[in-house]
Parts: sequence; C-alpha cells; structure tokens
Amino acid sequence: MSFSPLLQALINALRILPGVGPKSAQRMALHLLERDREGARQLATALTAAVEQIGECGQCRTLSEDPVCEICASAARDRSLLCVLESPIDLLAVEQTGGFNGVYFVLKGHLSPIDGIGPEALGIDQLVRRVEEGEVQELILATNPTVEGEATSHYIAEQLRHLPLQITRIAHGVPVGGELEFVDGGTLAHALAGRRSLR
Amino acid sequence: MSFSPLLQALINALRILPGVGPKSAQRMALHLLERDREGARQLATALTAAVEQIGECGQCRTLSEDPVCEICASAARDRSLLCVLESPIDLLAVEQTGGFNGVYFVLKGHLSPIDGIGPEALGIDQLVRRVEEGEVQELILATNPTVEGEATSHYIAEQLRHLPLQITRIAHGVPVGGELEFVDGGTLAHALAGRRSLR
Repeated sequence: MSFSPLLQALINALRILPGVGPKSAQRMALHLLERDREGARQLATALTAAVEQIGECGQCRTLSEDPVCEICASAARDRSLLCVLESPIDLLAVEQTGGFNGVYFVLKGHLSPIDGIGPEALGIDQLVRRVEEGEVQELILATNPTVEGEATSHYIAEQLRHLPLQITRIAHGVPVGGELEFVDGGTLAHALAGRRSLR
Repeated sequence: MSFSPLLQALINALRILPGVGPKSAQRMALHLLERDREGARQLATALTAAVEQIGECGQCRTLSEDPVCEICASAARDRSLLCVLESPIDLLAVEQTGGFNGVYFVLKGHLSPIDGIGPEALGIDQLVRRVEEGEVQELILATNPTVEGEATSHYIAEQLRHLPLQITRIAHGVPVGGELEFVDGGTLAHALAGRRSLR
C-alpha cells in the first residue's frame, strides 16, 4: 500500500523541483492538501501562466513575457554598454547592485562541448550580429569565474576580434568585506596578478 | 527592476511550499522555465487534479480520491483493530512496517485549544460513534509522543470509558538499534517505567 494514485502523482511531480527529495515532496504534498489548497491552486495557475506565456526577450534573451523585455525597451539605458551574462539570475544580481546602466545579453549557459552546447545554443551569432551593428562601444564579459565561463568569454572575445569595440572582463579578486585568510588560492593569485596602483 | 510580472508571480507562488525561501523559489522558477517546462506543466496538472479530486475517506478520514480509501475498502483488513493516528503520513509510516493488519482513523491534528482545534475538528465524535457500533475490539492510540499527542489520546480514552473495548497506547521507549547514551532523558524514563519481564 502507498498513497492514493493522485497523491502519489503529486509527490512525483513535486520531485522535479531542484533540491526536493522524496521526503520533502511528501511533506509538501500533504501540507498543500491538508492546509493550503488555495495556495496549491494558485501555484498551479502561476505555473501554467509562466510556462505558456514566458518566452525570451528578442534582444537580450532573458526570460520575458513581452517580445522585448523592460530593460531592452527602456529609453533610459545606455545601449553602448553591453554586459554578457550566463543566466537571467545573474542579470538580476547585477541589476540589484544599482550600479549598471547599460543593457544585457543573456547566453543561458556556457560552452560545453561534452553536453553538445555550442555557440549557436548560446546565441553567440546573434550577439556578434548585434555588435556588428556598431552601437555597442564596450562589451563587458561577465560570465561566471569558472573554467567553462572563462572559456565562453574567451571564445566570444575571439569572435569579435575584427571589430573596433572595447572588450572587458569583470574583475576577479578578493570579495569586498572578506578576509584574506578565507580566500581560496586561485582567487588570491588572481587578486595579486590584477593589483592596481594606488598613486 | 525585478523579474517580469509572471515570473515574480511564479516565485511568490512557489514560496507557499514548506521549506522554500525566496532564494530557493527563484532557483526553482528559473530551473523550470529554462530547463524543464514539461515538468512544470505536469506539476500544474498534478496540483489541480489533487486539489480538485482528493477529499477524505468517509471512514478513516485519510486523504483519498475515493469516498472510501483502499484500506477501509479492503476485505483483508481486520476491522476489530482500530489504530488512531494524527496524520496521513503517520498512516503511511505504520503501513510501511508491514506489521499492522487492522484499520485506521486519522485525526488530522491534535487537540489544541489555543488554535481553536477541539474534538469536533478531529472527528472524535465520528470516532466514538464508530466504536459504539461494536465492531472494534481494540483501539490503539498512536498519536505522537508529544504533550499535545498525549493529551489527545487521553481525551479519546476518556470519551470511550463507558464502552467495553480494549484501549491501548503505543509503547514508548528506546528506539531499536539506538544507543542508550544518545537517548534523551524523557524517553529513557519512559523505557524504564515501561520495562517488561523477560521470564
């Protein structure tokens, strides 16, 4: 004997969520059915609406239910400054700093030949065409500081070598507020190599 | 700037799940939209089906999409042995031991006057009527070994005092396979008070 078929189906469906194992899925399903059926209904509606209506922005590829996202559509943003990111969540992280007024291009991943993810899947051809149009003066490569992220940034820089714009990579170094003692060796080596003169 | 309205709505909806905070909800929403839209659709369908079709078994009050659940409907179960539990998840735990062939009654909670949960909310009147019918020979009180669970069991036993059936409480003691060193004092005191003769 196990749960009734519909309850078991719900538990299985909840397991597709990242970080949710069999026990959490059970707890979630029983919580929803015993204490929050209205919430479960709202979640079902939100899921359906999101899946059916959220596509990607035609200009920056971030998740958006409009053909062009709010940022790309805004007249207040500096279109000469283009920041390349791996994911929509990175875009939010940069936006939340409040210190960037340019526009974005979201790769949705990084080059990973082993998984069959090549330049086309990341829209790098679209990015190159956009830069070729000439409006972009500086391209900031803000992929993750991982081997794959570095390789992706390097590849993009190579593809744009024939164009006269400035290409930069976000700085790597010790985190602000961190203590050197707890910084890993690779980061510390980067921080030393990238040292800047104070006078 | 934040996420697009539909994406934000999905993130908010995911937060109703127990144990899911703002960061996990973001990660879940982006995972679904970027990597598993089919899974998101299935989850929406499973939620709707569960909320609309799962009610409770008219006999034992466990979650069930049928008017009478599989266990209550089974001819193979011993109807003279009735086990009282706090929740459907406890029912599953007892079933999984494979050692119980009686039937169940699920309270869906415990007495908690402070939250306005009285005997009616737990279906205790329904339980008393069922026992009064005379088929039940032994009632096993298997509420949680907490203050509220004990109080609930005590209350039920009181309500049935005028009836001739046997009323038992599950044994409390040291867990099988545990080490005395790591057992809390209350449990150990219970285990000593409930000691059984070996010969």
